[in-house]
Amino acid sequence: MGDTVKQLAVLGSTGSIGQQTLEVVRAFPHRFHIVGLAAGKNVNLLAKQINEFKPRFVYYQDKKAQTRLANAEYKFLSLEEMASHSEVDTVIVATSGKSGLSPTLAAVKAGKTVALANKESLVMAGELITSEAKLNAAQVLPIDSEHSAIWQCLNNEPQKAAQLILTASGGPFCGYSSAQLKEVTVEQALKHPSWHMGKKVTIDSATLMNKGLEVIEAHWLFNMPYDNIQVLIHPQSIVHSMVEFIDGSVKAQLSYPDMRLPIQYALSYPERLANPQLPRLDWRNINKLTFDQPDLDTFSCLKLAIEAGKRGGTYPAVLCAVDEVAVDLFLAQRIKLTDIANLAEQTLEQHQVITYPNLDEIMVADAWAREKVLQLVTGDNPC
Amino acid sequence: MGDTVKQLAVLGSTGSIGQQTLEVVRAFPHRFHIVGLAAGKNVNLLAKQINEFKPRFVYYQDKKAQTRLANAEYKFLSLEEMASHSEVDTVIVATSGKSGLSPTLAAVKAGKTVALANKESLVMAGELITSEAKLNAAQVLPIDSEHSAIWQCLNNEPQKAAQLILTASGGPFCGYSSAQLKEVTVEQALKHPSWHMGKKVTIDSATLMNKGLEVIEAHWLFNMPYDNIQVLIHPQSIVHSMVEFIDGSVKAQLSYPDMRLPIQYALSYPERLANPQLPRLDWRNINKLTFDQPDLDTFSCLKLAIEAGKRGGTYPAVLCAVDEVAVDLFLAQRIKLTDIANLAEQTLEQHQVITYPNLDEIMVADAWAREKVLQLVTGDNPC
Repeated sequence: MGDTVKQLAVLGSTGSIGQQTLEVVRAFPHRFHIVGLAAGKNVNLLAKQINEFKPRFVYYQDKKAQTRLANAEYKFLSLEEMASHSEVDTVIVATSGKSGLSPTLAAVKAGKTVALANKESLVMAGELITSEAKLNAAQVLPIDSEHSAIWQCLNNEPQKAAQLILTASGGPFCGYSSAQLKEVTVEQALKHPSWHMGKKVTIDSATLMNKGLEVIEAHWLFNMPYDNIQVLIHPQSIVHSMVEFIDGSVKAQLSYPDMRLPIQYALSYPERLANPQLPRLDWRNINKLTFDQPDLDTFSCLKLAIEAGKRGGTYPAVLCAVDEVAVDLFLAQRIKLTDIANLAEQTLEQHQVITYPNLDEIMVADAWAREKVLQLVTGDNPC
Repeated sequence: MGDTVKQLAVLGSTGSIGQQTLEVVRAFPHRFHIVGLAAGKNVNLLAKQINEFKPRFVYYQDKKAQTRLANAEYKFLSLEEMASHSEVDTVIVATSGKSGLSPTLAAVKAGKTVALANKESLVMAGELITSEAKLNAAQVLPIDSEHSAIWQCLNNEPQKAAQLILTASGGPFCGYSSAQLKEVTVEQALKHPSWHMGKKVTIDSATLMNKGLEVIEAHWLFNMPYDNIQVLIHPQSIVHSMVEFIDGSVKAQLSYPDMRLPIQYALSYPERLANPQLPRLDWRNINKLTFDQPDLDTFSCLKLAIEAGKRGGTYPAVLCAVDEVAVDLFLAQRIKLTDIANLAEQTLEQHQVITYPNLDEIMVADAWAREKVLQLVTGDNPC
């Protein structure tokens, strides 16, 4: 209770991770204080959150709706201004898609601690973000359950790991053949067996693209060569990931799938906080943990993502962009689930890579890829 | 290569743990140097080890055989002298049974680092050893695979754990009923499904007494209340134990069952050393890890041991003594496997406990218990 109160800015406060972050903050009012809230779409929920947490800074995507939220007690800031503001200690980046990139970069440049739930930032600009973080002594702490698991296992080990082992639930279509995967519906794809998440990441889990993006993220977060990152299918989602050390010893982190744990750990680090709301593993009900090799032929998004990561430069940004557009097209029932991989493969093939890209070059690659996918789908072929 | 060479004394060098310790030393000749070797029974092997490692100090139990080993290049010392000698940095206590207790105590009193494979020391005299270790800034590092796992999971976590979860293979009779357990033979009991160990610990694994002794050991090593130590049956012996933290996060340590890993870690700590001889988990061949609650009614040794631990004082020493005698009687086919628990229960019931015992009082309790068991078995009843 006597400890320093951390001043938090939550970017994406109305999304799934944002809301769970606020749950953690509610549980520890003497440890965490909300100075900034930023949301993109849900103005009603944001208004409620503002009323409850009384932040000094607010961002809302729709400028018109700002009128409704306007109040003398807080100030509207851009995402980048909020992420780098001197009154903010820790920035929780829980926005989805590429909108997280620019504020993440602003935060690391300002030397902030960044609790990162947004995959796209590191996938699109891992090189840029990690080098800026190093330069400005900023910490990038993972909120993804897999990366949090690896981080917890690595904690204070004096030496580098030999191998990272990311687990994947396998999604709702684990064990499907390519032919079966071709015929799945949007409804089926949105039913994730173990995690309740946003639509984009749920579809990404069904294609294993999510795991591919996480491999790239792990590469940057833990400075680990791709050949030393392994993916294992683990349908129970209890073991969140593992680390193999140079002596062959493996550490794993386990818990029920509940994002509040990795969120809380990123906020409380290096401490842990006793939170009775977080579930404890009940070993009377856990009899079996299973592990399988991923089927890279059927779930080729995983293979494509690892390849894009290895090739580097603007390839991962292109992959991210294709996936974002293709998932939307699938959700709109305009393409099949397996078309996501096909579109990614074709777009990556046609991409003219730029190595060591800056933010502008990444954004150009992103725009190019988005247009390319739409062309491929509509049959236009201007390139 | 440029690091300090640790000066080691191996007590019990011809036993299973002792031999594996020397294997690790062989793999890192620039990191570890043998200054002392001590053995109890196998004079031929000890002679070979002396020839290979050229220690400055030697102990051999049989004074007559010392003549055969006598050599101007080394000096005979008692176990206690060797364990506390100024030229020794780390004492590996790999003797079996109560013979480890006195040298362990000598080592901690001399402020040495003790790599402890001998369960009995901490079970019989946990209070004494841990308080002396604290007083003399000695480190007691575990070599048991379970305790090494817990220690690795706890490593550098800033706070105390909420719960320790010790795994047990369950031994060869996992799933047996009480009636079935009654009829097992010595040969069956000596066939451990996952570990190759000495006879005493193999029988202790078959009765789960071993796990009970480990619970007591864990209590002392990690200063953890008995109610926060859980035992789980895990027949694959891949997860060597787990730790639950106050936020509900659980860490586990995994590896194939190979004692060289915990031995090496205790020697190299806080570093890890890359040793190509140690096996790596091959996840292509590990599909399933299973967990079950122990059957405390059938395997009542576990229950008895935890109770003896909770009651404290000289009770655990009595338990150790009974078990050592009873296992010998079982191996000699004089009693049934299930009689080990019966004898332990009766002896513990009749014991007049001494709280906060000193070494002498522990030894008196030990002698009393040994005699008591023999009386119970032969039917004499002088008490």
